Amino acid sequence: MIKWIDDSGTEKDIVVSSRIRYARNLKNHKFPIILDKKESEEIFKEISDVVKSKDIYGKNFSHFKTSDIPPLEKNMLIERHIISPALIENQGMSGFIMSNDEKISIMINEEDHLRLQVLSSGLNLMECLEKADEIDSILDEKLEYAYHKQFGYITACPTNLGTGLRASSMLHLPALVMTGRLEKLLNTISKFGISVRGVYGEGSKSIGYLFQISNQTTLGNDEKTIVEKIEKIAIQIVNKEREAREYLLNENRLELDDRVHRAYGIVTNCTKITTDEAVKLLSLVKLGVDTGLLEKYKDINFNKLFVEIQPMNIQFEAREELNEIERDTKRAEIIKTAFNKESE
Amino acid sequence: MIKWIDDSGTEKDIVVSSRIRYARNLKNHKFPIILDKKESEEIFKEISDVVKSKDIYGKNFSHFKTSDIPPLEKNMLIERHIISPALIENQGMSGFIMSNDEKISIMINEEDHLRLQVLSSGLNLMECLEKADEIDSILDEKLEYAYHKQFGYITACPTNLGTGLRASSMLHLPALVMTGRLEKLLNTISKFGISVRGVYGEGSKSIGYLFQISNQTTLGNDEKTIVEKIEKIAIQIVNKEREAREYLLNENRLELDDRVHRAYGIVTNCTKITTDEAVKLLSLVKLGVDTGLLEKYKDINFNKLFVEIQPMNIQFEAREELNEIERDTKRAEIIKTAFNKESE
Repeated sequence: MIKWIDDSGTEKDIVVSSRIRYARNLKNHKFPIILDKKESEEIFKEISDVVKSKDIYGKNFSHFKTSDIPPLEKNMLIERHIISPALIENQGMSGFIMSNDEKISIMINEEDHLRLQVLSSGLNLMECLEKADEIDSILDEKLEYAYHKQFGYITACPTNLGTGLRASSMLHLPALVMTGRLEKLLNTISKFGISVRGVYGEGSKSIGYLFQISNQTTLGNDEKTIVEKIEKIAIQIVNKEREAREYLLNENRLELDDRVHRAYGIVTNCTKITTDEAVKLLSLVKLGVDTGLLEKYKDINFNKLFVEIQPMNIQFEAREELNEIERDTKRAEIIKTAFNKESE
Repeated sequence: MIKWIDDSGTEKDIVVSSRIRYARNLKNHKFPIILDKKESEEIFKEISDVVKSKDIYGKNFSHFKTSDIPPLEKNMLIERHIISPALIENQGMSGFIMSNDEKISIMINEEDHLRLQVLSSGLNLMECLEKADEIDSILDEKLEYAYHKQFGYITACPTNLGTGLRASSMLHLPALVMTGRLEKLLNTISKFGISVRGVYGEGSKSIGYLFQISNQTTLGNDEKTIVEKIEKIAIQIVNKEREAREYLLNENRLELDDRVHRAYGIVTNCTKITTDEAVKLLSLVKLGVDTGLLEKYKDINFNKLFVEIQPMNIQFEAREELNEIERDTKRAEIIKTAFNKESE
């Protein structure tokens, strides 16, 4: 199923994933927003040809025009964080290239001509950056990037100007939320030019204690400095989350144990469940497993499960469109299967 | 543990229990409320001696002065419906006699000199009445009951005057509640001189869909007519509950299945649980078992479990006083044991 969420990276109990993204544009082409069909296809071919001509880590890459992908699959890829909603909005003109392990993707004619992304499980930003740099160099050899000596890489939106880099990490922070310590921590973090938003919730609402941190500015620092800062702050948050877990275990063990076991009881027994509730409850169960209160399930890859229970993934795996009730029922089955439970 | 809740009676999936109670007073004695110690002891001895002198169904009876019973045990007996709170309020003067199978109890100097009670599982009012009549006749041979030709048996409170009979049944009516059909039904029932109140809730609040129906008036009809009426109405309610269950299964099966399984998931996995929540959730689980949605647990005696998880019963079985958290934790364990579940 979902390939990129594997056992790589560190701090995997708290850091779900790391992501490096470079925004690039080609000289002598209009920005995607004003492209015509013909020019967009030239750009797709140009980038696609470079990837085809090079061996990148011995990986196989698949090349797609967005419009050729069935709607279910497109949305599934968004949920898996491989492509973006913006790519689909621009689907007549856009395309993407994806490594078979899903860790590397290149979106073509999304907001910029080229968006290179390297994904990893756990905390792994520096390694992702190195990979992204290598691939970027390979592309740079053959493509003519739009680059300005003073401003750096030219991007469609000025917020990406300079390095074109977005480094982000998704963190699972239930204990910081439960102890009420998160808000203060996030205030401090935002002073360092780090933005925080929820994951899987509407807009930036967080569901299930998942948060994404990323750099706010792309200009003024080199790539390594930006990534080092994000990684350093991620580690600080991880440590604060560990402290909060210790606090809960010491001061409020029974309460935590009860919450975790109730979540487990509901999620493994219900007949139907919405995405929001499932992410929320699984998030509590994950906390139980990570703190040793529900040790039995330590082999479950919750980070993968969070994605597997998203609506489009469910339909993609079922190979058909499902209505809400059917999805909610299927979701309950998927979770039971993950816990190796039979329906009673 | 709890002996009187066995497999006797019919309609056991919906009718938890049946109860016949006779209120009697002795001629030439003041009512309990104005008794002195000496006279109360004479009354206790008088009644106790009659029971000792007779063989009643070959049952063994134990005779107690209320003040001799440890507080935990007294409250446990109330929760098991064997004695009443009023008996304890009057404990310096009162006593009780109880058959070893707990089905027959005689309270002495509660509100009246003598309160005879016959309990049974399921719907069994007529048999309870026959037993109560037999025992009442045995007592009547030796005791001089206060009886008035026109008014019948004289009681401390005029609401018991006449037959001194209270016939009641405890019913489990989740589907009538869920379908919103109960209220209308209860309005109709109250027109027939039947009163309905909740069980285990504060005052007459119902918890876990348990309701008790009983006759409002004790005067003007003979005992058999009163009991026949209650039994007839109980059967009508049972049938309405069965119809409502069919309706839920046909029209809303998935929703019902989900609620039942969630309740099961929580109640068998939580680390601690209050009485109210436990009764409520077990009530849903019982509905699941009775409707075949959770067939695996059809051997669990839920009617017994409802009593076993009451606070005093928990402490009585633990042989010690427990604080709230300890009781809530113990309750969760008792439920897990009943479902033959190990903690995860």
